[in-house]
Amino acid sequence: MKAIISNVDLALAESLFAQLDQATRRGRGIVRDSYGPGEQAAHDILRTAGERIGLEVTIDAIGNLTLTLPGKDRRAPRILIGSHLDSSPQAGNFDGAAGVIAGLCAVAALRGSGFVPACDVGVMAIRGEESSWFDVSYLGSSGALGLLDPQCLCVRRSDNGRTLEESLEACGFDPAAIRERRRLLDPGQVRAYLELHIEQGPRLVAEGLPAAVVTGIRGCKRFRNARCLGEYGHSGALPRALRRDAVAATVAFLHHMEGVWSRAEQEGIDLLLTTGELYTNSAEHAPSKVAGETHFVLDLRSMSEDVMEDVAAEARRAAEQIGRQYRVSFDLGGATDSPPALMDSRLRNSLLRLLEEPLEMPSGAGHDAAVFAKVGVPSAMIFVRNEHGSHNPEETMALEDFAVGTRALTALLQRFPL
Amino acid sequence: MKAIISNVDLALAESLFAQLDQATRRGRGIVRDSYGPGEQAAHDILRTAGERIGLEVTIDAIGNLTLTLPGKDRRAPRILIGSHLDSSPQAGNFDGAAGVIAGLCAVAALRGSGFVPACDVGVMAIRGEESSWFDVSYLGSSGALGLLDPQCLCVRRSDNGRTLEESLEACGFDPAAIRERRRLLDPGQVRAYLELHIEQGPRLVAEGLPAAVVTGIRGCKRFRNARCLGEYGHSGALPRALRRDAVAATVAFLHHMEGVWSRAEQEGIDLLLTTGELYTNSAEHAPSKVAGETHFVLDLRSMSEDVMEDVAAEARRAAEQIGRQYRVSFDLGGATDSPPALMDSRLRNSLLRLLEEPLEMPSGAGHDAAVFAKVGVPSAMIFVRNEHGSHNPEETMALEDFAVGTRALTALLQRFPL
Repeated sequence: MKAIISNVDLALAESLFAQLDQATRRGRGIVRDSYGPGEQAAHDILRTAGERIGLEVTIDAIGNLTLTLPGKDRRAPRILIGSHLDSSPQAGNFDGAAGVIAGLCAVAALRGSGFVPACDVGVMAIRGEESSWFDVSYLGSSGALGLLDPQCLCVRRSDNGRTLEESLEACGFDPAAIRERRRLLDPGQVRAYLELHIEQGPRLVAEGLPAAVVTGIRGCKRFRNARCLGEYGHSGALPRALRRDAVAATVAFLHHMEGVWSRAEQEGIDLLLTTGELYTNSAEHAPSKVAGETHFVLDLRSMSEDVMEDVAAEARRAAEQIGRQYRVSFDLGGATDSPPALMDSRLRNSLLRLLEEPLEMPSGAGHDAAVFAKVGVPSAMIFVRNEHGSHNPEETMALEDFAVGTRALTALLQRFPL
Repeated sequence: MKAIISNVDLALAESLFAQLDQATRRGRGIVRDSYGPGEQAAHDILRTAGERIGLEVTIDAIGNLTLTLPGKDRRAPRILIGSHLDSSPQAGNFDGAAGVIAGLCAVAALRGSGFVPACDVGVMAIRGEESSWFDVSYLGSSGALGLLDPQCLCVRRSDNGRTLEESLEACGFDPAAIRERRRLLDPGQVRAYLELHIEQGPRLVAEGLPAAVVTGIRGCKRFRNARCLGEYGHSGALPRALRRDAVAATVAFLHHMEGVWSRAEQEGIDLLLTTGELYTNSAEHAPSKVAGETHFVLDLRSMSEDVMEDVAAEARRAAEQIGRQYRVSFDLGGATDSPPALMDSRLRNSLLRLLEEPLEMPSGAGHDAAVFAKVGVPSAMIFVRNEHGSHNPEETMALEDFAVGTRALTALLQRFPL
């Protein structure tokens, strides 16, 4: 039996997406600003919908909304199903919101069929996941779990310059919860965290599948301020052997690293390697000058911390060797690290069995699920096919694909305890 | 016999370099601004020195100064020996001035020994060779030969914003000569143009030699506005096969072109290949984004026009192929062309025989000699060893090395007609 209850109310989903679109579209794109009117409008819409279904409404000290379907044992650790309701500026309608609406549809389906779960099931609408407003990711989930550094209260919103503290107060929330690192949610009291999210890459489109189970959220090791230092010289007068050409050396280095990636791929190793920023120094470069300096970023992603360590070590070795060869010096600088977050294998396998065409894939982008996984909450995610990436007005999710993911989650909710 | 007269007056040279330094040093570096007080101060110093030696003084309509030692046949085509007296901002004391002082020392040596040349020998102090002031190179030599586009009169000086026309007038010169494309110097009346210049590259230092004869001035084919267009995407979510990564494609392209250069080098083909500017778009790039766009310059130099054509064709072919491979599109844009200028083989060979350790090398940088060669005047250049390149206060030329080049030129003057 693929799904016990498959009567997901797509009319409800459609109506909620339409309400969100209408309330938060600004020009071409969606604007649901963290701790601002856009996010609040989305919370109001979801709260009203939850109340209409008869769910219990709670809002924590920093504004996370939970709509609860009571279970048989109200004191047993509960299941949370949700995602975030904020968006990056000029974004699409689905990044984040799809997960909350999926949770609401799943719970509505349970309630509609008279199914009473063993434990409470809370649909969680999380605040401030996007880093575009406060330059901090996962404000809502990290804050609820008492993980936020209180210094983030001083971070100013990128558009209006208000601090997070001022923004929380303006919304009627309590910055003291963050200042005191108060735990608003006990991870021991959460049996599972489930999240549906649009895929932010093109793989499901390429595979021709509506949904996939997420194996985990890739870690990221990033050399944010890598440099190559050579010497400027006349492009017409300097023979190759006498150059200290920072561009030629950087090209050789990045070409070598692409080879490393290509070999890893052939061996089936999970790895992504990106240089998204690369530039000579505009104050000194010129068409007739051999370049004396480059700046670049090297961003490594993998499901395996060991792989990231190995590739970073290889990058340092290659920089040293190619630096000698080209008579320049590389300085890769410090690396920022965010470890991979593995999804719970039992939840993954249960979800996989609920898909008609099972596929697993890692998530390259970060999600609230990574925060829950980090504190030991068994977590799982389902990706829904989406065109044109995310964080732009062109993101596109078909309601039929959303239904496939939501049905699997609905079915999973009925299988607890697994 | 290596040199007939080798009594070059180094005390004269030393004194002139010292006077120039004292009159035109501004802070750390030399400033001899084209059609400004710095250049004029240099002209005044050289004019006074020429008068003291008893040379005839003429100044053309656009300010080029010629100090003439009369020959036996005053109506015969004359020999010109010189260079420019302007400098780029914050430059060294030798780029340009060394060639004019070498000419004066050579002529002073002839006069001192009572040698009367077959034809007039003019020491030419040329105006405005550097493009740093008016963004036009070779103002003085091109202007004298009637080659300047009159539109250049509207070009504004990079520092004070005055047009070339206003600047000429302020110095007491006549912009009409340029407006009317008047030829102030008949190339048919110039038997040879000789120029000593510091080497602007490091080759003579590397070779351990004081001077070399220049084979020619490399041509330059420059793709000034090359671009690669891909698609931005999430660095953690986009697998390699689905990327349209402009940085990866540009790296592959530039790496391929370095291979082309390396093979040309092995075959002894004269070629230089430089990417001095390379950048992702700072308005859109980000550490977590696959880059959707790069801009770069591809600067090809060679003594052979065919080589430049072949390499440009290979660049277009490779851009097409690598573009397909990486699912991006390259647009190399238009190329600016300046053809190579070959030095006269008889003059070259004569000069070579006058060097104790003969070496020939191409010039990568442009020089007034290229302008004379272009209108058919037999031209030759001698490079003098120089450390730290040019266009910076650190350029360094030893007087002994200057003497080696100047002695060869002095001897050559006595060999005419060759």
